[in-house]
Amino acid sequence: MELLKSLYWRHATKKMNGAVVPEVEVSQIIKAARMAPTSSGLQPFEMILVKNKAFKERIYNEAAKQSQVVDCSHLLIFAAWDQYTPARLDAVFDNMEAVRALPKGAMDDFKNSVLKSFDTWDQERQFQHAARQAYIAFGMAIAAAAELKVDATPMEGFDNAILDALLGLEKKGLKSVTLLPLGYRDEENDWLAPLKKVRMPLDAMLTIIE
Amino acid sequence: MELLKSLYWRHATKKMNGAVVPEVEVSQIIKAARMAPTSSGLQPFEMILVKNKAFKERIYNEAAKQSQVVDCSHLLIFAAWDQYTPARLDAVFDNMEAVRALPKGAMDDFKNSVLKSFDTWDQERQFQHAARQAYIAFGMAIAAAAELKVDATPMEGFDNAILDALLGLEKKGLKSVTLLPLGYRDEENDWLAPLKKVRMPLDAMLTIIE
Repeated sequence: MELLKSLYWRHATKKMNGAVVPEVEVSQIIKAARMAPTSSGLQPFEMILVKNKAFKERIYNEAAKQSQVVDCSHLLIFAAWDQYTPARLDAVFDNMEAVRALPKGAMDDFKNSVLKSFDTWDQERQFQHAARQAYIAFGMAIAAAAELKVDATPMEGFDNAILDALLGLEKKGLKSVTLLPLGYRDEENDWLAPLKKVRMPLDAMLTIIE
Repeated sequence: MELLKSLYWRHATKKMNGAVVPEVEVSQIIKAARMAPTSSGLQPFEMILVKNKAFKERIYNEAAKQSQVVDCSHLLIFAAWDQYTPARLDAVFDNMEAVRALPKGAMDDFKNSVLKSFDTWDQERQFQHAARQAYIAFGMAIAAAAELKVDATPMEGFDNAILDALLGLEKKGLKSVTLLPLGYRDEENDWLAPLKKVRMPLDAMLTIIE
């Protein structure tokens, strides 16, 4: 099975060698994230792809001091919606009506019921929900990179507020949630590369109700 | 690219036909979830696989009234840790030391630094963090099912508290986050099957910093 092979192959690369990932492959990784399923099809996240070397250095210096941020070829950033709004849902369902050639307004009942249920949630809960959807897409991007034998380092431990400011995310109603530097492992200096892959045994993670 | 093909093929199946997914394929789907990367390798979630028909009916009646819950072949439930505890981290790093044949205690410094950082978070934040990791695994299971041409319906909209009680999750320190019924689409009655797949255009989701 291709996915399992890819997941056994990959690891969170600790040192990258600076080689450049072909644009066509970066594009496939981003497309996989775009195709991730999300709650009610809302896709409540955006991606920022940083290729600029000086900007990667700034992110490294100010928000995410891990070498992969500068040694990667492309830095892919996932940012979730800070809340659900009527305008955002309009855009989603206008697009759905257009793609499916439905009459204008055909999705209104569904859209309004989704909006109504979010209305009972405070903004933090809305953001947490959107962030979870972004993590599904994050996972798809990780799997896609692995299938292409592109190394990647899933990252959470960075200064979200500073990164959001650097990227001007607040005025877009977005909050950064994860980073995914893409590139190639530096075999000699990636200390994790030679180590055995570790996962908990399945019987510690799985209960079967027969 | 296999993953993209799988993601284009799949959809959130709205009606399943009751046919049974081979155990070997269910096992591959679960293994893909197990191989998902998670923060510090903690894998802070468990899976519950429900095969029992009467139990699926009980879940349907009491917690998740969508037909796929009973018409699926296997109901896979993802539940996240309700918090990070020293005992849980001991189990993770004991396993890592065993798999990598490291001396007992070799991971202690790292484990303690992880514990220390979680200590500054309240329990809700710890749970939200664990839930996000579970969503990466949820994504891998969705992708694995699609590669195997097994239909699946990612679900969030259920009564978490009732399901947790049915499964006895609270005493295990777990909270259900998502359901993934696995089975096969009932082509004639799955209203979503013939409809065009919809995603937002990439330019609405992606910013490139050259």
